[in-house]
Amino acid sequence: VTTDALPTGFHATVANIGVKDGSDDFVVIHAEGPHVAASGVFTQSRFAGPSVHISRQHLAAGTPSAIVIVSKNANVANGADGVADAHAVLDHVAARWNRRPDDFLLASTGVIGRRYPIASMASAIDALDPQAPSADLRAAAHGIMTTDTVEKVAVAHVEGSDAVVCGIAKGVGMIEPDMATMIAVVMSDAHVAQSDLSAIHRRVTDLTFNCVSVDTDTSTSDTAVVLTSGYHDVELSSFEAALQQVQTALTKAIAADGEGAETLIEVTVTGARDTEQARRVAKSIVNSPLVKTAVHGADPNWGRVAMAIGKCNDSDIHDDRCRISFGGTEVYPRTIGVDVLADLEKYLRGDMVSIEADLGIADGSATVWGCDLTDGYIRINADYTT
Amino acid sequence: VTTDALPTGFHATVANIGVKDGSDDFVVIHAEGPHVAASGVFTQSRFAGPSVHISRQHLAAGTPSAIVIVSKNANVANGADGVADAHAVLDHVAARWNRRPDDFLLASTGVIGRRYPIASMASAIDALDPQAPSADLRAAAHGIMTTDTVEKVAVAHVEGSDAVVCGIAKGVGMIEPDMATMIAVVMSDAHVAQSDLSAIHRRVTDLTFNCVSVDTDTSTSDTAVVLTSGYHDVELSSFEAALQQVQTALTKAIAADGEGAETLIEVTVTGARDTEQARRVAKSIVNSPLVKTAVHGADPNWGRVAMAIGKCNDSDIHDDRCRISFGGTEVYPRTIGVDVLADLEKYLRGDMVSIEADLGIADGSATVWGCDLTDGYIRINADYTT
Repeated sequence: VTTDALPTGFHATVANIGVKDGSDDFVVIHAEGPHVAASGVFTQSRFAGPSVHISRQHLAAGTPSAIVIVSKNANVANGADGVADAHAVLDHVAARWNRRPDDFLLASTGVIGRRYPIASMASAIDALDPQAPSADLRAAAHGIMTTDTVEKVAVAHVEGSDAVVCGIAKGVGMIEPDMATMIAVVMSDAHVAQSDLSAIHRRVTDLTFNCVSVDTDTSTSDTAVVLTSGYHDVELSSFEAALQQVQTALTKAIAADGEGAETLIEVTVTGARDTEQARRVAKSIVNSPLVKTAVHGADPNWGRVAMAIGKCNDSDIHDDRCRISFGGTEVYPRTIGVDVLADLEKYLRGDMVSIEADLGIADGSATVWGCDLTDGYIRINADYTT
Repeated sequence: VTTDALPTGFHATVANIGVKDGSDDFVVIHAEGPHVAASGVFTQSRFAGPSVHISRQHLAAGTPSAIVIVSKNANVANGADGVADAHAVLDHVAARWNRRPDDFLLASTGVIGRRYPIASMASAIDALDPQAPSADLRAAAHGIMTTDTVEKVAVAHVEGSDAVVCGIAKGVGMIEPDMATMIAVVMSDAHVAQSDLSAIHRRVTDLTFNCVSVDTDTSTSDTAVVLTSGYHDVELSSFEAALQQVQTALTKAIAADGEGAETLIEVTVTGARDTEQARRVAKSIVNSPLVKTAVHGADPNWGRVAMAIGKCNDSDIHDDRCRISFGGTEVYPRTIGVDVLADLEKYLRGDMVSIEADLGIADGSATVWGCDLTDGYIRINADYTT
């Protein structure tokens, strides 16, 4: 397979249906094959939109084999009208694709509190040709972008089999997952039983999409889906490894393309009481506006990492047991000389900054990803709807 | 009393002792009177500096009657050397002021992880004249500034008495209190028993300094202190009202002068299950980078407030029971017309923006304060130590 081909049994339609402007804003991906399975994890937001509610219902009721993704409008906080609009989108797609509405999952991303231009969208959907040749992976990734600056795709082979795992994702603000994050669709032609797929998907998502944060804000629309068509038998452990490879790559791509981001930040916490504490402390560091701005300014102000650990306020964290490093070079507790600060400043000018903290308590560890906080984030978000 | 006078029994020394540069960086405030009392609340950070630890010890052991404030260097994360430096500062002050070291509280603010230039600081302290005429309130407020752009002072009379309550504070980044926040010193010539003062101080701080957030980062040095000299008898309820008036004014001043801030944001949540939930939801709104940038850009993107409520993830929050208003004008659930959005955009251009959310659950309510997120915050914090 080439990087841009979909796995066996998959077909993608990418189009503009006039959600906001003339750019691609509509993607339908469907799977056909001997053993179709689907898994989804969604935002825990109490303002989750109709797309999320409908997708949850369809997954609970059966095995959807396709997903519809609308970008440039989240269709959230629109009350009963928004629910009706979401169903209308699926009804028109189902009629055109000659499937049942509950064969489809639905994801939507963009501004909150604005209704779809549903009449013109419905007309545009009715005019689509599901039989046209499939769009490739990159085109599908492009079709789900909002303020993303690059398409996010990742591909891995399942070791010991002919199966492939391909993923697309979009970020890029309002990224702090609780259960899932942003929109990601992973496709595979592996044969994986539905129950195995759900368990594997949750485990892998916990280590990937649930470990990225751009701005601590949690979207009302976050959706991560895996669809498999079932053409190739696989070892489950090999499939899980390939899925983790793809989702890790997408996670890093989302962090690196965070709104306004110029630097990918990877934070690893070791020596924690347990994984939960390690992840919480790591997120405190990667989410700290003062750490993010220090990285942005290549300011060797490592004291802000100490601050971000300290604010976690766990009674078993003690400043005299903690160690803090940047890219493997310890900055605390050793006394910092001017030469070390100059080296640290140089290191911070790279495209990727690794921050390591050891709490000296036990063996818990976690890695999370984020990005620096820049003027670009302010500009993008101070002027998004207007 | 004029605005700039200290209460009866108070004396302030303001000086430059060469902590970082030639600006004022050293303030000593002491109280003398018939009934001196003191109360302090401090950061909950696990990386709290020696100043905080020493102040806690001195409050636990007796009744300090003075406070030393060092600005431009927090003296945090410096290990045993930092502890020794903090004690050295107090030893030199105590010798010069002819008091015991444990008569003093100590607060320090500025960069983390750099040692004091202790030798030159000690020489400068030894050369100070404690008998010189007292500095006024504004000079004391100026002496504790770091990146603050204005002095923060507030004064209130205690109704029904001759007592006055005067406060000074500094912000302005790393502001998300857990117990206390930033550095604030409130002075009064009221006569309040030590135990009453502590209880009143905690209650008032919970409604004021604990309700401000600039960037969710919690300082390692946050300290709020009340000193009273005891010249005038007061009704405790009147004293508490005056203290709340002063601390509320300082809280708003800190939020309005948040690093890079151009707009003060006041968020009031009503209809919550209880006060805890109301405050948590209000903080989720006021801390959301996307809400803060929308206010900065005067972008009428009220959906981000819905997002910030939704991410609180309480099972008793339901989107169909919530109401969201800006400055008293409801934007959700009513359908927004273009004219309303235009009015909202105009409202957002003001110096102060009020956001109100009602959860429709019960009667819990809370008000918190914050500020917009601007290019200025990025610039200040990307280049702070260098």
